[in-house]
Amino acid sequence: MSQSNMPTARTRVVREPERGVYDRETAYAILDEGFICHVGFTPNEQPFVIPTSYGRKGDNLYIHGSAASRMLRKLNEGVPVCVTVTLLDGLVLARSVFNHSMNYRSVVILGTAKLVDDPQEKLEALRILSEHIIPGRWDDARLPNEKELKATSVLRMSIDEFSTKVRTGPPIDDEEDYSFPTWAGVLPLEMVTQALVPDPKLDPTREAPPYITDYSRK
Amino acid sequence: MSQSNMPTARTRVVREPERGVYDRETAYAILDEGFICHVGFTPNEQPFVIPTSYGRKGDNLYIHGSAASRMLRKLNEGVPVCVTVTLLDGLVLARSVFNHSMNYRSVVILGTAKLVDDPQEKLEALRILSEHIIPGRWDDARLPNEKELKATSVLRMSIDEFSTKVRTGPPIDDEEDYSFPTWAGVLPLEMVTQALVPDPKLDPTREAPPYITDYSRK
Repeated sequence: MSQSNMPTARTRVVREPERGVYDRETAYAILDEGFICHVGFTPNEQPFVIPTSYGRKGDNLYIHGSAASRMLRKLNEGVPVCVTVTLLDGLVLARSVFNHSMNYRSVVILGTAKLVDDPQEKLEALRILSEHIIPGRWDDARLPNEKELKATSVLRMSIDEFSTKVRTGPPIDDEEDYSFPTWAGVLPLEMVTQALVPDPKLDPTREAPPYITDYSRK
Repeated sequence: MSQSNMPTARTRVVREPERGVYDRETAYAILDEGFICHVGFTPNEQPFVIPTSYGRKGDNLYIHGSAASRMLRKLNEGVPVCVTVTLLDGLVLARSVFNHSMNYRSVVILGTAKLVDDPQEKLEALRILSEHIIPGRWDDARLPNEKELKATSVLRMSIDEFSTKVRTGPPIDDEEDYSFPTWAGVLPLEMVTQALVPDPKLDPTREAPPYITDYSRK
């Protein structure tokens, strides 16, 4: 998992090249912490960017949706797709407006996606998607039946051509600005859970298991 | 701001149409709470999806970046662009794997973007971008000088063709699953701030002002 991946002309980071990272380990750590991607595809001339969940197994990314989804059907035609995952870590407050920034980690994957036909791989991909978002849930929920599997499409995308961009650390100001009288530093941001909201139809004596009460993305 | 916007064939929500919302008020509330968008454009055949910050004034969306940015220069050629903003509100745990979902609010805007040439509108757009992300910061930081303004490009996109998708509330299970013995409900997620990290080069006696210590997106 630690082999580096040579950037292509399409994935080499040109703006702020020092933020460009091309090893799989960094990319996969980002993909494994997030669970919402933005899928870009261009059915005609107009691109669309649609948020959806995803899972990863090895060098494959899986997305899923309704078998009637226009997006999934279009992607299965083999049109070029871009999948981007962005984790926001903080706001970077410099002395100058110009040097303000954000700390973030993002992965951009280019390629094509293909419908998973094999029933065993499809079920396994759905398990991976579920466990990616809420580890422990798959074995504690009612599993998909034949009808539901038929109504669901899963697409596989090979993670071959990708780039990662990472910014961390304090603001970088111009030398003459360090004396400017304002606060400077990082305001970290984090996605955290709030108090559980049980389904009104849930038996009130049923308690949430640890994989839900202790849920965290880190 | 409360007039409704008729969906076009390109923006009408087909999957889960009950989640489709087309009024500007809902869309603008989502745009104003978020500050990261994913910009999709297709320089050639391959779409790219790039995260960036944004600001809004009236029916215009502004994005900015380096004047050397390939993305901004490409967009200014008038290629079709899609800007998507997604706010994740929670994980929806149903009894069946199939009925698991997420609570979210997203806006998809289609159109084209144009370089802001007028110096006054450009400076105002940069103020809007800054105030959108950290209200109060503009008046407390060193403002852009001529050289920095020249090195920055601002693009304007008219918010004409858009759609909004919203899911809220508890899981919806199939009737026969309500007796399935598992916890069900919503695990709310929220982006919150963590303890400030002052710049190591900051005078340690300088305290952060309330617009930073009380920062919140709500």
